[in-house]
Amino acid sequence: MKQKRQGDRERHVGRVPVKNAGKVLKGRAEAAGKPPGTLMHIGERQVENPVITMIAYNDAEVTTRRLSDLRECLPFRKSCRVVWINIDGLHDTTLIAQAGEVFGIDPLTLEDILHTGQRAKLEDFDRFLYLVLQMIEFSEGALGITREQLSIILAEGLVVTFQEKPGDMFDAVRQRIGNPSTKVRRFGADFLAYALIDAVVDHCLTILEEIENTLDRLEEELLEDYNRETFESIYSLKRELIILRKSVWPLREAVGSLMRDEFKVVGDSVEPYFRDVYDHIILVIDTVEVFRDIVTGMQENYLAGVNNRMNEVMKFLTMIATIFMPLSFIAGLYGMNFHYMPELGWRWGYFAVLGLMGLIVLGMVRFYRSRKWF
Amino acid sequence: MKQKRQGDRERHVGRVPVKNAGKVLKGRAEAAGKPPGTLMHIGERQVENPVITMIAYNDAEVTTRRLSDLRECLPFRKSCRVVWINIDGLHDTTLIAQAGEVFGIDPLTLEDILHTGQRAKLEDFDRFLYLVLQMIEFSEGALGITREQLSIILAEGLVVTFQEKPGDMFDAVRQRIGNPSTKVRRFGADFLAYALIDAVVDHCLTILEEIENTLDRLEEELLEDYNRETFESIYSLKRELIILRKSVWPLREAVGSLMRDEFKVVGDSVEPYFRDVYDHIILVIDTVEVFRDIVTGMQENYLAGVNNRMNEVMKFLTMIATIFMPLSFIAGLYGMNFHYMPELGWRWGYFAVLGLMGLIVLGMVRFYRSRKWF
Amino acid sequence: MKQKRQGDRERHVGRVPVKNAGKVLKGRAEAAGKPPGTLMHIGERQVENPVITMIAYNDAEVTTRRLSDLRECLPFRKSCRVVWINIDGLHDTTLIAQAGEVFGIDPLTLEDILHTGQRAKLEDFDRFLYLVLQMIEFSEGALGITREQLSIILAEGLVVTFQEKPGDMFDAVRQRIGNPSTKVRRFGADFLAYALIDAVVDHCLTILEEIENTLDRLEEELLEDYNRETFESIYSLKRELIILRKSVWPLREAVGSLMRDEFKVVGDSVEPYFRDVYDHIILVIDTVEVFRDIVTGMQENYLAGVNNRMNEVMKFLTMIATIFMPLSFIAGLYGMNFHYMPELGWRWGYFAVLGLMGLIVLGMVRFYRSRKWF
Amino acid sequence: MKQKRQGDRERHVGRVPVKNAGKVLKGRAEAAGKPPGTLMHIGERQVENPVITMIAYNDAEVTTRRLSDLRECLPFRKSCRVVWINIDGLHDTTLIAQAGEVFGIDPLTLEDILHTGQRAKLEDFDRFLYLVLQMIEFSEGALGITREQLSIILAEGLVVTFQEKPGDMFDAVRQRIGNPSTKVRRFGADFLAYALIDAVVDHCLTILEEIENTLDRLEEELLEDYNRETFESIYSLKRELIILRKSVWPLREAVGSLMRDEFKVVGDSVEPYFRDVYDHIILVIDTVEVFRDIVTGMQENYLAGVNNRMNEVMKFLTMIATIFMPLSFIAGLYGMNFHYMPELGWRWGYFAVLGLMGLIVLGMVRFYRSRKWF
Amino acid sequence: MKQKRQGDRERHVGRVPVKNAGKVLKGRAEAAGKPPGTLMHIGERQVENPVITMIAYNDAEVTTRRLSDLRECLPFRKSCRVVWINIDGLHDTTLIAQAGEVFGIDPLTLEDILHTGQRAKLEDFDRFLYLVLQMIEFSEGALGITREQLSIILAEGLVVTFQEKPGDMFDAVRQRIGNPSTKVRRFGADFLAYALIDAVVDHCLTILEEIENTLDRLEEELLEDYNRETFESIYSLKRELIILRKSVWPLREAVGSLMRDEFKVVGDSVEPYFRDVYDHIILVIDTVEVFRDIVTGMQENYLAGVNNRMNEVMKFLTMIATIFMPLSFIAGLYGMNFHYMPELGWRWGYFAVLGLMGLIVLGMVRFYRSRKWF
Repeated sequence: MKQKRQGDRERHVGRVPVKNAGKVLKGRAEAAGKPPGTLMHIGERQVENPVITMIAYNDAEVTTRRLSDLRECLPFRKSCRVVWINIDGLHDTTLIAQAGEVFGIDPLTLEDILHTGQRAKLEDFDRFLYLVLQMIEFSEGALGITREQLSIILAEGLVVTFQEKPGDMFDAVRQRIGNPSTKVRRFGADFLAYALIDAVVDHCLTILEEIENTLDRLEEELLEDYNRETFESIYSLKRELIILRKSVWPLREAVGSLMRDEFKVVGDSVEPYFRDVYDHIILVIDTVEVFRDIVTGMQENYLAGVNNRMNEVMKFLTMIATIFMPLSFIAGLYGMNFHYMPELGWRWGYFAVLGLMGLIVLGMVRFYRSRKWF
Repeated sequence: MKQKRQGDRERHVGRVPVKNAGKVLKGRAEAAGKPPGTLMHIGERQVENPVITMIAYNDAEVTTRRLSDLRECLPFRKSCRVVWINIDGLHDTTLIAQAGEVFGIDPLTLEDILHTGQRAKLEDFDRFLYLVLQMIEFSEGALGITREQLSIILAEGLVVTFQEKPGDMFDAVRQRIGNPSTKVRRFGADFLAYALIDAVVDHCLTILEEIENTLDRLEEELLEDYNRETFESIYSLKRELIILRKSVWPLREAVGSLMRDEFKVVGDSVEPYFRDVYDHIILVIDTVEVFRDIVTGMQENYLAGVNNRMNEVMKFLTMIATIFMPLSFIAGLYGMNFHYMPELGWRWGYFAVLGLMGLIVLGMVRFYRSRKWF
Repeated sequence: MKQKRQGDRERHVGRVPVKNAGKVLKGRAEAAGKPPGTLMHIGERQVENPVITMIAYNDAEVTTRRLSDLRECLPFRKSCRVVWINIDGLHDTTLIAQAGEVFGIDPLTLEDILHTGQRAKLEDFDRFLYLVLQMIEFSEGALGITREQLSIILAEGLVVTFQEKPGDMFDAVRQRIGNPSTKVRRFGADFLAYALIDAVVDHCLTILEEIENTLDRLEEELLEDYNRETFESIYSLKRELIILRKSVWPLREAVGSLMRDEFKVVGDSVEPYFRDVYDHIILVIDTVEVFRDIVTGMQENYLAGVNNRMNEVMKFLTMIATIFMPLSFIAGLYGMNFHYMPELGWRWGYFAVLGLMGLIVLGMVRFYRSRKWF
Repeated sequence: MKQKRQGDRERHVGRVPVKNAGKVLKGRAEAAGKPPGTLMHIGERQVENPVITMIAYNDAEVTTRRLSDLRECLPFRKSCRVVWINIDGLHDTTLIAQAGEVFGIDPLTLEDILHTGQRAKLEDFDRFLYLVLQMIEFSEGALGITREQLSIILAEGLVVTFQEKPGDMFDAVRQRIGNPSTKVRRFGADFLAYALIDAVVDHCLTILEEIENTLDRLEEELLEDYNRETFESIYSLKRELIILRKSVWPLREAVGSLMRDEFKVVGDSVEPYFRDVYDHIILVIDTVEVFRDIVTGMQENYLAGVNNRMNEVMKFLTMIATIFMPLSFIAGLYGMNFHYMPELGWRWGYFAVLGLMGLIVLGMVRFYRSRKWF
Repeated sequence: MKQKRQGDRERHVGRVPVKNAGKVLKGRAEAAGKPPGTLMHIGERQVENPVITMIAYNDAEVTTRRLSDLRECLPFRKSCRVVWINIDGLHDTTLIAQAGEVFGIDPLTLEDILHTGQRAKLEDFDRFLYLVLQMIEFSEGALGITREQLSIILAEGLVVTFQEKPGDMFDAVRQRIGNPSTKVRRFGADFLAYALIDAVVDHCLTILEEIENTLDRLEEELLEDYNRETFESIYSLKRELIILRKSVWPLREAVGSLMRDEFKVVGDSVEPYFRDVYDHIILVIDTVEVFRDIVTGMQENYLAGVNNRMNEVMKFLTMIATIFMPLSFIAGLYGMNFHYMPELGWRWGYFAVLGLMGLIVLGMVRFYRSRKWF
């Protein structure tokens, strides 16, 4: 039975990826004691060489180019309305330092970009805004959530994004940039920043929908059987929801500030769009809370089911045991070898005993019926 | 016994509709990555063709008409004090886009109308107000709550409502419009909007009353028997209350704003009525909280009952087993076939053993009595 | 045993009245869909005919009179400093409508007076204040809390109170009005309103004291025995505390407003008295919270007790079973009928087996002793 | 075993004093319905005759005197910088009324002084401050907290304290007054009030330290054995913490106001001292919260321990039962008296059966080993 | 088995250091009743003789010196931009009193320095700032957190730190002071204070990372086996998290004030650094909350696992018992010694009975299979 359980667990949970996924803190210890402004990447090195991609566009044309040096983008800053630089891979601190020089980012912000696992926050440096947030990925097989830090620098006509590794949820945004009739082409860098944040938040909603499907599947499993594996899946899901909530909650404040406050680099016409993202973030937070309540309810349901099952098992054992114990005793009684036991000689003794046993069984059955044991 | 349980479950819970009912998010995934302002219906297609109904009225007369084109309503906007357009069915995006043109609604709001499953909110566009909320339906048989999104556009002399499917709780409002002496006929469009919101909130109260009846019925079931089906019904009810709470809570803020803030399209004379609706929303929220506490209490009661029942079962088993085990042992002892067992030859050996057994039974019974086991 | 439990339950809980008492919503469903301002009583009809009582007084004299028509009070409004009209019974909507006319109360407020089960609130209509609150009654036998809605209209020189049925906690106030040297006679209508609210809140404190006595009694029952009935009483008490809390909590806000804000009909000299009532309401709320914590603790205590009891039962069963099973096996072994079993023929075989059995018993007893099982 | 448990409980808990200690409300019922300003003592009469003590001092000298009439203190008010009147015993309402006259305290405040069990609060009457708080005593033997109400009237050059009974935590303050070089001698009445409040709060810290020791002792008991008495002690402690928290929490607000707000009778130089007391109150509240969390953890630990213990008991029973049941069955099989049972006649039948039994035992033991049952 | 458990516990928990570590209050009782401003060390004496170390630096040079008298530092205050005095050991009240004189610290603050176990707080004395906080150490073997109070006096060009014992987390800061190109050398005393606070908070993050590793290890242990020791480790960890949270929470407020408010001794250029520390504190608090939720989840998981395990044990017992009880009964039946039992004489009686037994076993096995018991 052991083997079976092991196999089931793998099918259901697949713990190893979950554990890495659930990592709340990553490698902070190494950075402790370093002076502030020391550029040092905290987090796993997830890519061989950093990749720099530039998309520069104005009403007329779009240029997409892979850069080998950040300074290559400078000519485009003059000719194009919006320049979007995306950097995948953070371990090359020279590159990050160069980005600081080229775009005028101060050392403490560069440090925040490199120290992954930051709480989402918005910082206003007048000339540019710095927004850091967590991109969430969900693998249903492993019930695991992975987080990747996204740093956005928004300046006049410029968006710089820093990601830990290649692969993101921005392909739809890139396609829309390619199409001259979309809003993203007509608006400025602030709208591009909005589009990126919106893509991240919408992806959260997609993930929540997958989690809801998983919840439904687990609930069906619960209805069929109260097995341990289902409980552990529920437990893993709860753990992931705790971490998801922690990631999204501070984003509310950051985007709320984008919506309400006045910033030099965010135009009034983009504000309603940030209000829209804000509504989605609230929806994400609400839904995570509802899911936590539902998951807690499922755990209670599971425990009540196990208790109930145990109750039934015990009732069954008790019924069988209390019926057969008196019968076996009577049989044992007339199996004694005393020389003088008058009943043994009676002609109908055996049948009388059988009859007595039958009466006992009947009485017991009626007793259990009256107590609704079955 | 298995079959019996299955049957019971169907009678009590009827899970399938519940599960669909409890859906927190609906089809958001499809919309992710689409540019903002792309009109696309998120949610199930619930009706064949959208139905447009117009009710236009002033002090003198009421016109009720089914429209095939939204522009048919334009003449009535001049001749009548209030025009109410109701659209059932959201999947025809062309119709919604036309509504945007005819009534001057901006694309982001049209998107909110189409993306069902929105959090209740109020948005002020000066020339009109946009209110979105969830209409709640409850099916007691299935213990399931279904939600339908209602979008209300309130402009000067105009109310436009968007529903996902035909059938609503506004028949009483329609009747009152038919009666020239009612307030709704004497006031403007703002009062009509109030009457619609009031009908939705009052329906929530009606549902809570049904839930209270269900709670009372479940509590009686709990008193009679601690069976699993009752627990699952309680659990389903708790889940529905979580979702109900999530739907109603943000409505508080939206209607609170209607009550407090100044809007161009809401007259001062209607404000006390919004205060009344606000009081009802608070009552709904309070009651949902109280029901959640009560349901939690019922779960604890159930678990305590199961524990207690198990305790009694175990006590019974222990009493029977501890009485018959020594007796059977004695009987087995004198069933041994040793050649030399002096007791076996004694004249009154058998009866002495019977007496000893009787004493053991008496002693055990007294022992259990003294510990109040029965 | 079943009968015994039934009887116990009646003695302890008396469920039927509890259930009615705990009704959170009363008959709201009937009112849904009615236009606002339709006068209709929501709640049980609790009295045959409404009774109108007037107490009018000034420094010199007090007139107590039962009125058949509300207009009879009008002459006294001129001659007396304070006129207090009390109406017991709300189902006669004509009477309530007349009250609206005579005292100038607007229709929405009349509706609130009739719809019992309102949340406590204070509304300021400049010329008069409208305060609605719940009077709490507690029946210890049934562990049940009943609520009755009290509406107070406070105008210059006038207090009108509406109750659902005769019988209240205001007799002490009436006595004090009868005594010319009391403050209530020297102050105005605002002080009378204070005295009435104070009586309601003080009654809550009295009820909490009764609940504390019940708690103490239940705690003693818990110490003696962990029976199901005690648990159900605790559970009922918890449920009533939930409802009590819901009734008192909003009163805090209403009286807090009376204490802080400026109203035309409340003099400065009465404010310290409202502060006093406010302190008492806080005390009630604090105490309800403390009682809920205590009741939750008692439930945990009960469950731990049941668990412990089960543990002891199982230990006892295990001890008896594990001692007698090996003995019975040995007895059974030598009860086999093999033709060739050398031990059976030994002279001291029987006694050797008895000795072996004794050693087994001794070993088991020592084993259990070492594990502190008894 | 019963007797043992009873004895243990007395040793551990000593319930009777606990119950009285935990009394949340005291005799409020009697006061209900009385007009405001009626002087009437609510609470137990704890002393034969009230005792009035005066300590009057200035830089030069200290006069300590027991007064028989409050007016005896009046001459000292002129000659001394600070006069401290302490009254032990509240049931003599004539005395309290006289205090009201002599020191100019209004009737509602006198009522608050007499109604013990008040929430801590600060009231400003310009000419004097009224502070009421609860002095906490803890008896470790009984795990019981007793509360005594302390009312402080602070006026220019005057402190009047009212206690329910003699005996307090102010002896250290009295000693310091006796020493001319202490701050209390150099400052005014406001510093004396601070010193008194500080003594009460410091005593709370002392009590929390005793509670921490009790917690440590209980934790050690938990490690040794999971007996019921330890759980009931933990439960009592939790209950006392609930009541302690309720007593201290409102004190925060009262002293916070003393620290922040401007009062005529509190000099600026004393404010840092109130800030110090305020810090201590926060420390008390924090610590109570931490203790509640720890106590809750201990309860969970206890329950997990009981569960675990039960698990072990059941495993042991199951192992013994499942080993001996098949053996006994085989023995019973060959104890049957059929005339034709070929095995019985075999030469090595008996030993073959013994061997079979041995194999069964071996198999079972291996099975349990493989499942890590022991 | 007992011995094994004992050994395991030591390996896992090592309770003794944990208990001391978890001490929430330390020796407050001794200080109660003392007049304010009495210098007296509250806490354990942790070092033989206090050690005073001075590090004085400006752009050009660094002087590190062990002082025997505090006044030795005075010449450096003129010649160096920043002087950092660190005092290890608090029991020598003469030294602390001298520090008060030399640096002009008022008596109440000196008291706070000596009374260890303070809540973190910031106090502004215009000429200097006083910050007190708790340095956290974690010993994974013992799962224990120890706290040491750190008091920081920040004046113009001066930082004085008071620690309870030698050994701290400031070695990295000291190294950076040694390097002339670091920021700490270029900025003033305010930056040094920041660097110290940052070191303390970063150390918290390091500890949280160790706790996360412990959590992962415990989770793996949980997956393998549900033994009591793992639960007790989880429980200890939860307790330590409660205390950790209590220590860090108030630091948020103190550093938040450093970040927001204007102080004479904190320059504007250092504020962004305090914002950085503030972000880290929020991260610590968030992470502690997440860990508490995760630990609670692990406890639930453990309990569910124990329940499940018990369920399996009971199912196994029930299966074995209900199969062998009927068999043993039948065997016992034909072991009776009645003279007239016709079956005994039948030729195939024995084999018929064996066949019947086989059928019973088959039936039972099918019954359990159908209920999915194995």
